[in-house]
Amino acid sequence: MQNQAILLAKRPVGLPGPDTFQFVSSDIPEPREGQVLIRTLWLSVDPYMRGRMNDVKSYTPPFPVGEPIRGGGIGEVVASRHPAYRPGDLITGDLPWQLYALSDGRGIRPVDPNLRPVTAALGVVGMTGLTAYFGLLEVGRPKPGETVVVSGAAGAVGSVAGQLAKMNGCRVVGVAGSNEKIRYLTEELGFDAGINYKTDDLRSALRDACPNGIDVYFDNVGGPVTDAVLFQMNDFGRIVLCGQIAAYNLERPEVGPRLFPLFVMRRLCAQGFIVSDFARRFDEGLRRLAAWHQSGRLKCRETVVEGFERLPDAFLGLFRGDNIGKLLVKVAEPSQPARA
Amino acid sequence: MQNQAILLAKRPVGLPGPDTFQFVSSDIPEPREGQVLIRTLWLSVDPYMRGRMNDVKSYTPPFPVGEPIRGGGIGEVVASRHPAYRPGDLITGDLPWQLYALSDGRGIRPVDPNLRPVTAALGVVGMTGLTAYFGLLEVGRPKPGETVVVSGAAGAVGSVAGQLAKMNGCRVVGVAGSNEKIRYLTEELGFDAGINYKTDDLRSALRDACPNGIDVYFDNVGGPVTDAVLFQMNDFGRIVLCGQIAAYNLERPEVGPRLFPLFVMRRLCAQGFIVSDFARRFDEGLRRLAAWHQSGRLKCRETVVEGFERLPDAFLGLFRGDNIGKLLVKVAEPSQPARA
Repeated sequence: MQNQAILLAKRPVGLPGPDTFQFVSSDIPEPREGQVLIRTLWLSVDPYMRGRMNDVKSYTPPFPVGEPIRGGGIGEVVASRHPAYRPGDLITGDLPWQLYALSDGRGIRPVDPNLRPVTAALGVVGMTGLTAYFGLLEVGRPKPGETVVVSGAAGAVGSVAGQLAKMNGCRVVGVAGSNEKIRYLTEELGFDAGINYKTDDLRSALRDACPNGIDVYFDNVGGPVTDAVLFQMNDFGRIVLCGQIAAYNLERPEVGPRLFPLFVMRRLCAQGFIVSDFARRFDEGLRRLAAWHQSGRLKCRETVVEGFERLPDAFLGLFRGDNIGKLLVKVAEPSQPARA
Repeated sequence: MQNQAILLAKRPVGLPGPDTFQFVSSDIPEPREGQVLIRTLWLSVDPYMRGRMNDVKSYTPPFPVGEPIRGGGIGEVVASRHPAYRPGDLITGDLPWQLYALSDGRGIRPVDPNLRPVTAALGVVGMTGLTAYFGLLEVGRPKPGETVVVSGAAGAVGSVAGQLAKMNGCRVVGVAGSNEKIRYLTEELGFDAGINYKTDDLRSALRDACPNGIDVYFDNVGGPVTDAVLFQMNDFGRIVLCGQIAAYNLERPEVGPRLFPLFVMRRLCAQGFIVSDFARRFDEGLRRLAAWHQSGRLKCRETVVEGFERLPDAFLGLFRGDNIGKLLVKVAEPSQPARA
């Protein structure tokens, strides 16, 4: 048995290609005093990780070249010299793209044993759920009766943001890139309307779907979708800038219509945010998300890609729009049933 | 003696030209019961008035074609059948571009008899002062030690916003379009630095003038100046969108770099506002502005154009950057000393 890792081989320019990633093998390490050895079961791939591949000062440091890529994951403790963990424990947190990894306990925590499925810890009851929760409720502040538009609406964050807006009594319109996604939004998640930005005339579809204009825009995408939405914002509208996936693989910044004259005229507010800005309130958010998830009020489909070796392609699938809901890579089955 | 008016002859496309304005003469009207006859002394020309020349739904209704242009002004009551006004009273408020105008008292109020000069009622102790006051303090919320950049810094609003930021303990950098304006900012108003966007390399000048980055940007201009500032904003920076004069005469919206990816990365917030959003707090603002003005803490130069017939050109001068401080048109001398 060997360990495997996927390193950032070089910084990508534009869309990452095969030369961005390097697979390396090594021996499985032994934990030293204070360490646990984790066997990776699940890894989450998320659009923000593209930013960490660039050498740009940002809210998370860049991945070093020649080091493993890292992201949210779930693992099983297989050996422990750490007082808080025993073999068989399930943990979640920041993990390297490796089959096995050592941890000193920083950045990991036990998975809530009541969570079913455990992968919800990477989605609706994890970072993507928290992102939607704080972004929509604290940044967007939707009021009952308002109209909320969500871009990237069928993704992990967008699908939760839209459901939270519905729970707050809003009219909710999702923008996504396939008819299958639109059906998911309207038939399974209760969105009031969905717009396929690839085939619909975006401006007229928005006018039809938002007869009272748009009060809150939860933006995961940017680019022309965002332009079209902004031109239909109501006075005092709020634009929650959660992500801009349309821009992440551009080799140079794109141009678009200047929107600030519209901001003055309609007193719009655009606010960028990062989930970690709300870290002190994660416990509150996770408690509420877990309760809604458990009661079935909050749904989120998972799109699962099987196999460690498919991590790079699964990651690139985010930019192709492959996923409905949370995109996860299944690395391994747990070796034993999780502790109750 | 005849009355004269300047009507909006047709809606301009791009920069207004001679065919935008029409001079007409008529008899001087007599006030009816409940009316005052006002002789116009001063008229204020302001960039926002360009927006009212378009047929676009906005926060103020468009000027009707064939009707007089209107704006802030100061006048003298020459005849009154209104219980609140006597001949000789000075009033300020929304006035038509006319030598004489009737009013039923709505939209006008007496000029504070302690105000010296009375024209401060159109500037630092009037709408432009209030715009700077609420925009900087309520929208921008600068903290002592932060760096504030103001565009259109030598204009009526920008010059007050910058001084208020200094009073709040900030490092203040003004961007303006001539060396004379820069000297005004740094030598008379106490700005820490000034940048001439027409001759300086904007990005490197901003880096030099803002060694700790930019926390608050008070924007009157938009366009490439704003792009350059935004790329140097600090995390959690606030962008106060007060005006976008660079865009007001464009025949079609300009394109520029898409800035929202930067908003997410640095958690920037851009908020458009209009002074009338704060109407319920005007008394508070005017009281404080008047006190600072009277004590000499708050200065604002006036650029005066003499003659009613020069109103259109004075207005267009705003877009050429002709003015330092408040741009006013002197229409007439008061016929008698103002009442004490």
